[in-house]
Parts: sequence; structure tokens; C-alpha cells
Amino acid sequence: MSATWKELAAAKKAEQQASIPSAWLLSADKLPPAEQKDVTGVPESCGLLSAREVEITNTDVGPLLKKMAAAEWSASDVTLAFCKRAIVAQQLTNCLTEIFIDRAVARAKELDEYLAKTGQVVGPLHGLPISLKDQFSIKGLDTVMGYTTGIGKPAEKNCTLVDVLLAAGAVLYVRTNVPQTLMWPETFNYIYGRTTNPHNRDLASGGSSGGEGSLVALKGSPLGVGTDIGGSIRIPSACCGLYGLRPSFHRVTYRGAKNSMLGQDTIPSVAGPLCNSLEGVTVFMRAVLGQKPWLQDPLAMRKSWDEEAYQLVEHGGGKKLCFGFMWDDGDYKPLPPITRAMKLVKEALIAAGHSVIDWEPLHHKELVDLASNIWGSDNGQDFRASLAATGEPLIKTMIPEGVEIVAHDVPPIIQSKDTDAYGLWQLHKRKTELREFYLDHWNASVAKTGTGRPVDALISPAAPYPAPPHGMYRLASYTTVFNVLDYPTCVVPVTRVHPALDAKIPAHEFRNIEDKIVYEMYSPEVFANAPLCVQVVGRTQEDEAVLGISEIVDAAVKAYSKN
Amino acid sequence: MSATWKELAAAKKAEQQASIPSAWLLSADKLPPAEQKDVTGVPESCGLLSAREVEITNTDVGPLLKKMAAAEWSASDVTLAFCKRAIVAQQLTNCLTEIFIDRAVARAKELDEYLAKTGQVVGPLHGLPISLKDQFSIKGLDTVMGYTTGIGKPAEKNCTLVDVLLAAGAVLYVRTNVPQTLMWPETFNYIYGRTTNPHNRDLASGGSSGGEGSLVALKGSPLGVGTDIGGSIRIPSACCGLYGLRPSFHRVTYRGAKNSMLGQDTIPSVAGPLCNSLEGVTVFMRAVLGQKPWLQDPLAMRKSWDEEAYQLVEHGGGKKLCFGFMWDDGDYKPLPPITRAMKLVKEALIAAGHSVIDWEPLHHKELVDLASNIWGSDNGQDFRASLAATGEPLIKTMIPEGVEIVAHDVPPIIQSKDTDAYGLWQLHKRKTELREFYLDHWNASVAKTGTGRPVDALISPAAPYPAPPHGMYRLASYTTVFNVLDYPTCVVPVTRVHPALDAKIPAHEFRNIEDKIVYEMYSPEVFANAPLCVQVVGRTQEDEAVLGISEIVDAAVKAYSKN
Repeated sequence: MSATWKELAAAKKAEQQASIPSAWLLSADKLPPAEQKDVTGVPESCGLLSAREVEITNTDVGPLLKKMAAAEWSASDVTLAFCKRAIVAQQLTNCLTEIFIDRAVARAKELDEYLAKTGQVVGPLHGLPISLKDQFSIKGLDTVMGYTTGIGKPAEKNCTLVDVLLAAGAVLYVRTNVPQTLMWPETFNYIYGRTTNPHNRDLASGGSSGGEGSLVALKGSPLGVGTDIGGSIRIPSACCGLYGLRPSFHRVTYRGAKNSMLGQDTIPSVAGPLCNSLEGVTVFMRAVLGQKPWLQDPLAMRKSWDEEAYQLVEHGGGKKLCFGFMWDDGDYKPLPPITRAMKLVKEALIAAGHSVIDWEPLHHKELVDLASNIWGSDNGQDFRASLAATGEPLIKTMIPEGVEIVAHDVPPIIQSKDTDAYGLWQLHKRKTELREFYLDHWNASVAKTGTGRPVDALISPAAPYPAPPHGMYRLASYTTVFNVLDYPTCVVPVTRVHPALDAKIPAHEFRNIEDKIVYEMYSPEVFANAPLCVQVVGRTQEDEAVLGISEIVDAAVKAYSKN
Repeated sequence: MSATWKELAAAKKAEQQASIPSAWLLSADKLPPAEQKDVTGVPESCGLLSAREVEITNTDVGPLLKKMAAAEWSASDVTLAFCKRAIVAQQLTNCLTEIFIDRAVARAKELDEYLAKTGQVVGPLHGLPISLKDQFSIKGLDTVMGYTTGIGKPAEKNCTLVDVLLAAGAVLYVRTNVPQTLMWPETFNYIYGRTTNPHNRDLASGGSSGGEGSLVALKGSPLGVGTDIGGSIRIPSACCGLYGLRPSFHRVTYRGAKNSMLGQDTIPSVAGPLCNSLEGVTVFMRAVLGQKPWLQDPLAMRKSWDEEAYQLVEHGGGKKLCFGFMWDDGDYKPLPPITRAMKLVKEALIAAGHSVIDWEPLHHKELVDLASNIWGSDNGQDFRASLAATGEPLIKTMIPEGVEIVAHDVPPIIQSKDTDAYGLWQLHKRKTELREFYLDHWNASVAKTGTGRPVDALISPAAPYPAPPHGMYRLASYTTVFNVLDYPTCVVPVTRVHPALDAKIPAHEFRNIEDKIVYEMYSPEVFANAPLCVQVVGRTQEDEAVLGISEIVDAAVKAYSKN
């Protein structure tokens, strides 16, 4: 008799547990009590990592790569340190899926030998441990991707991004958790369960790259790779206080990665980095594009890293930028701490000599509904096909058992409906029109900026809330709008929720039921310690410029926050 | 009572006739007799053009631009010369739709004044008359696009390409004929009728940019802009003996141009040039990309002209190239003259120091069927919607009345069928897989080339036949395969059908009914004087390299043909 989906899930989870070196399992007294919400200090205090391993894992990507290239730190030592810290992170937030430390150790040894022998690094990522969302296939490992139907089907070959990262010198060691279907802004599935937020374990880690969010926030990974179809890199980045880039369509190779809704090419998912430093994000993009992935992946855009764009040649060299501030999308009013973070960024940019204008959202509701309708145009056939072989049920809510609240019949960011091909063409046609209107709207801002250019970038919340309690991340509208527009967007951390600064405010006139739910879920205590971030948004294929501008935003915020 | 579609069509045709300066209408004795098939000599012999106008219109784009920039020839004189020759072309092959000579003359005068005043050209296309397929909207003019429903609806603004060309200094003066629906490889509609081939008026001009093909071949335009979804630039180029580039998706702005099947974004139509010189093709691409169309069109790729790619840096500087020769796609055996042209190119390339290997077509039938199924996935709803307002019937065959042969229920390159969105996703998924297989196939050729690189480009027929008799262009498979793959492809003229060299050969074992039809339609007499061309094919977004390599092919063929 074949195993039930529950048995399959349990066996896979047990296999995962067995893949952890037993010496790295923390005893009950080293683990924080369940009521301890903020666990970000635990990796350093738990005693598993040596002082040197703590130092290594607290080092950002840029300096880390330099130390390894100079053979000051070996790839083996760096790899081992991050492996340990990742396993601690797993025990704190349940962020991992596949764990393959032996492979990582062997790979790091090879890199060390190569460097010792040749005096050369293998590539720009020499020795860097990189964690991957549970979509990026690695030969010989399952890619479960949140479905029991993915169990026991080891990949026959690496996806192209894995080959590209290895060619650039990276070390792969863990993959990270995702929600079933990938189409949720939180992270829960029936195999691995729920990933929590290390800043406050009562809060969501975000999704769908939520495993990456938690792991990178705990510095169990110096650099993680997620994917983003409607916010799935930016949402966990914003929930967990990270830098995270949603590149433009087809700039980062996706070939051979497992995915939901294959063939849904209208608003495709894109791969991109999550990191504790902006430099790490840029390092990733340079390294990936440097490998010319278009030679292997027919969908990867033939467009090298554009250093001029990064140096902001088309943005006055970055000297006096003008930002469009989108305070509110008009549909879901941001909570007080979100607005405070936006204000802080505004003040920081003005203090740094830049200017800002208010940005009027244009057709945002329609853009987001369009995405929902496009993703739902198969009326759920893709999800059903992915579940059929084991009979695993579709997850209808991410609210923990026992908590009473509105459930969803389908992932809340999808509106499923039978649609014929002609109907889908009409949605495509409207999408193009809306993208045209939006670009015209952007260009028209030249009349207001005073720079002789339209706005150089937008600053927007990533959501109306910081990381909410589990099950309450019900909207992806602030992120999805930029997927539909194909605008590259980088999340930049700003500050945190602070009860003294972020009191609840009186109710406004609610615009719709979700707007009311957003308002009502807020209290400074519930959201305590949650990171606050913003999105920096550029125009299609301005990825390099968005990174250059994000550096300016980041530096301004850091300088302003110090004063 | 509202006009019938026939009345609308007749009125529009009469309006066109009235837009021709009466002095330019050739009297019966100046027009060739109906039985004269080759009319390419008529523009020079008919007496309408002065010797200087003949000289001007016989000049290629490169020298033409230089003479105008040097104020040796005025834009006004050049414009008038091409206007006259275009009107002669119209009287010979019925290639035009909108004719707006007054606008062109006024525009040319402005350009002359600007140059006289400033000593500067307006842009890289200063003074160049450019003809446009009947899709590129111009403010105040109808864009009929082969449908009576398009009559009497003047455009409210220019499409972006028109703005871009004007900003670069071009002069617009005529638009050119297309088939109803645009989805035919020939050119016939109920408003303007049929466009014939100037090399042999019994033969098709090709389609859907067939008006451009005839006009440019008669040198009634130094440079035309067509569009290509399955071969619609390359087919008329090959039929009429021109250089024609199908650029990669989204490199040339399409915003605001009228189109069939709006929202069919899977294998989209692209805009590109047709020209009597390869230099003109390159001039067009440089000029359009130089205007940064992505600042106006959200779908236009943010990718400047890549001079390094054009200089073939990734192809050994163009010194010793290796070409993959696709002699036969395995489904439709090319006719003798097509194979002779391929052999001539092979010999020419070897004589020029390059090498060739045989190219095995991979999944070509499936790739082409995939395109048919994708374009037909709306089951004809788009065409019906475009016809509904006037009741104009869908054209079911392009065979002239009175000729007996198999008819088509729909354009022959479309397989219409009800498809739901999920079904369309499955076609998309397969398309991506096939593109991956094809790129792998390309890369694997490194084992055979002897250059250390995979093949630098493919050489392929553009069709199994030269321009066939009207109604007989039933296949677009040799061109469509490269649309599905999104491979930039340039047509290069080689020679002509010559009865002494291109005798009919014994029948082979027919592979299918169309293969039999191809074989049976051939006789050297029927195809007399038809141009013979090849396609030069590169990988996705290698547009610049394809132009650089096409120059090498063109030079080799010219050198070899002289000997």
C-alpha cells in the first residue's frame, strides 16, 4: 500500500532531522523558552559557535569575500560557521528544508585547495555559502517546494542558477522553506510546517521566500536566493529586516528551477537575493550576470551588468535625486509604524540633499486585481494537478489551528476563475495599457521634481503593516503592483516598531473590509520589535540604478538615524 | 442607413486615388502591359522621374544620408524623388495604403531650414524618407490595417516608433499594404486589393509586410518598416529580394502601433526594417535604439545598441566563423533554386575563409505547430471582433478568383481551437522547454565547429520556395520557427531563379500533403526571375551580431558571385 501524504510528509521531516549533525542539536536548556519572542541573540549565546565562528557569521558579504580571497579565512572555516548557525536558526524558526552539510564541507575544501594551489579564487563568490529557496534544483536532492508530491524525486541535474553560482565559487549547504503553492505571503506547508520570524516568533516570516527571510536575519546565511512573483522576496525581506531585490523579469536565470504555475508567463516569478547588506545584493547581481547566463538559459536577458547605470549616469550621478513618495496606495491605509518609517526616510533624504514629492498611485487596485485574475485564470488547475498524486489537500488559510478568523478558500492573492485564452489576451492587453499609463505618469513628474528629470525612484511601503501575526498577511498589493509593472524594487531596512513611537491611532473611514482588518490587527505590543523597511522602485530593467539609488537611501537613513 | 463594408472599402480606395497628384498618374502608354511580369525597370523608364531623381532614388541609405547631411542633396529633393517613385510603384504593384505627400514635403522643408540655419542635422536619419506598414499610427490618419472597420478612425496620436523616427530626422510619406488579419504570408485585403511582386507580377509579394516588400524593391522607398510575427518581414524580403531584419522581441518599440490579436503576448509581433542595403538595416537599428525608446514604451527593452556585439567580439572578431547550414527542415523539401542559393552561400563562405557544418533541425514541426496553436488559441475571436462592426467577411484564401485550388478556412498559418488559460499555459511551458532544448543543441555544436565556439550563426532558407504564384504561399514554417525561438534573423539576397540552372527535379517521397504541393507548384518558368535569399540566424538578443555576421555573408556572396 502506498504511503498517505501525511506519512510521506512525516518521513521527509524525519529525514531532515536526521540530516542535522547530532552534536549541533541544542539541548532544551540552550534553547530559548517558547515565550521568548526575539531569538536573534540566540545564535551568539547558545554556545554552539566559537567566538571566531560568531565573528565570521557576523561579517557582511563584501568583507567576507575579501578575507577568503586573501586566504585570511578559509572557505572551510566560513562554511562550517554558517552551517552551524543555519542549524541553530532551524531550531529557532524552522526555516530549512534540505540540509546537505557534507557536500558543503567537501566543496569548501576543494575551493581551499584550488586557492592554495593556484593563488587564484575560483570566481567572485569564492567560498561564499549561499542558501537557496526550496525551488532551485540541485542534482541528487529532492525539490519538495511545499508539496508532498515533490518528495522522493531527486533532481537529475542542477538548475542553471546553481551551475552559475558554483562557477562563480559559491558553496551551497541548505535550502529553505516555502508555503504550499508558493502563492502565499507567509510560509507554511504540510511537510516542514511553519517558519517563524526571528525578531518576534509570534509574527510571520513573510513569504513565499520566508525560510530565506528567517535564515538570513539570523545570519545563518550571508546571502540567500529567493523568488518573487508578487512580493515573495520583498515580503520576507521587509518582515525580517533585510535588503532584498526583486530584479526585472528574466535578468536572473530561472531555468530548471521548480516552480508553481509553469507556463504562466504573463507576470512571471523572478529570482533574486536577500541579504543583511546591500553590498551583498550587488555582489550577487554582478556575479550572476558575469557568468552570462543567457548562454545557458534562453529566457535570460542578454544584458550584462551595466556599470554606467549603477553609477547613476542617467540620474545626475546620484548627486541631487528626487524621490516620489507613495505614502498610501489608496486602498489599504498603512499602520502608524509604516508611516513613521516612510517619514524617517523622507527626512533622511532631505537631510542628505535630495528632494521628495508626493506620488499618486495610478490604477494600483486594478493592477493588483489584474495580477490576481491572471494567476487565477486556470481556476486552480495547476494547484490541483500538483496535489493530485498524493491527495494532499490545498491549504486554505495560514492561521494557526485554534485561532478564529476569516479563512480563505484559495491563497488570498489569487482570484481563481475559468478564463479562456481570448479572455487572458484581454487581461494582457489591459496590462500593457496600464504599464503605458504608468510610464507616462512617471515621465509627467518631470514637471514637479525640479531636477530636469522625472522622479529618480519611488519610495513605497512594502505592505500596510510590518510582519503581522501568523495567518494575517492577507495582502500583497504594495509589492504586486511592481511585479505587474515589472519595476525592479529593492527593500531597504529603516528601523523597528517601537511601542513609544507607534501608538495606535483613531480609526479612519474604512475603504473596504481588508482595510478594516489591517487597522484592527494593530497594537504596538503585538507588533513589538518588528522590522520596518521601505521599497525603492525604479523603471523596468533599471536594476543597476535601483541598487545605486538604494545605496544612497541606505546611507542617508543610517546617517540620519545616528544623529 | 450606414454604408456596407463594400461601400466603405470603395470610398477608401477612391480617397487613396484622390491623394495621388494627378500629374503623377502614368498614362496608359507609359504603363507596362499587363503581360509584362518584371516591372522593376519601369520607374526609371516611365519618364516621371528626372535623371537626378533616378540617381537619388537609386542611392542606398548610407550615401543618401551623407549627401543630405552635407547639404549636397536637400531633404526636399530627396523626398520629392521618393514620393514620385512610390507613386509609380503603386501604379505597378498596388503597394500603398495612406499617401500623404503634402505632409512629407512640409516636413522635408523644415529639415532643410533647420540644417541651413544650424549647420546641424536633426538626427541620424535626417531627411530620409521612410515608408511604414499600415500599422504604425500617425496622428490624423486612418490605420486601416486591412479591415474595413479601420476606416474613418484617424489616430489621435503617433505611435512611439513614428515619434522616434521623426526625432531622428526621418520624413514619412506613405504607408503600405497588408493582408486582412495580418496573419497571411501574402498581401490582399478588401479595401486596397492585392500587392504584386515587381520582379514578376504573377508572383506574390509575400506578407504580411508585402506592401513594403514591393515598394522597397522598386526603390519607391529607401527604407521600410514592417512587422514580423511568423515571418512577415522576412517573407516579403525574401520574395522581393531585400535585406530584412526580424529583431528580437521588444527591441524595436511597438507601442501605439495597431495590431491583430492584441494581448497575444506569447509570440509577439516585432517591428523591423526592410531595405535594399544591409547598411540601411543597421542605420535603422542604431537610430531607433539611439532614441532610447524604453523611456516611452514600457515593453521596449532597455538595451542600447551594442557596438561590441556588432564588432563580433564574441565571435572571434568575425575572422573565422563557422555556420550551421539548415538545408531542409525535414517537413517541406526546398525547391531546386532554393537549394542552389544555399549551396552558393556555402561556397562563398568557404571561399572567404569560413567553415560550415550541416545543421540538424530540432523539433521544427512542433515549434511551428506550437505557434499555430498559440495564435489560434482564441479560436478566431479576435478576427471576428475586428470584422463585426462592418460585417466584412473573413478572407479564406488568397488565391485569385477563378483559380481552382484548395482553400483555407482560416489563415493557413493558424490552427484555431478553443483553448482555456490552463491549456495555454501548457503550450507556454512546452515552448520554454523547446527553447531550452534548442539552445542546448546550439551549444553542443561546439564539438563540430573547430572554432572553440558553437556555430556563430545558422544559414537557412526563408521558405521552401521563392515567391510563389498568388495564393500559393501556404507555409511560414522556415521563418516561424525563429519567432518561437526568438532568434534574430536577417534575410540576405543571393541570386535569382534562372531557368537554365533551376530545372525541375524528380519527385521525392512526399512527407505530407503540403510537401507535395510545394513540389508540384514548381517550374522554372512559373518562378522566372524570382529573387533567392537566405536567412542568417543568431541567438536571442544577438541582433547586433546577426547584422555583423550578415555583412560577412553578404560580402562573401557578392565577392563569390563576381568571380
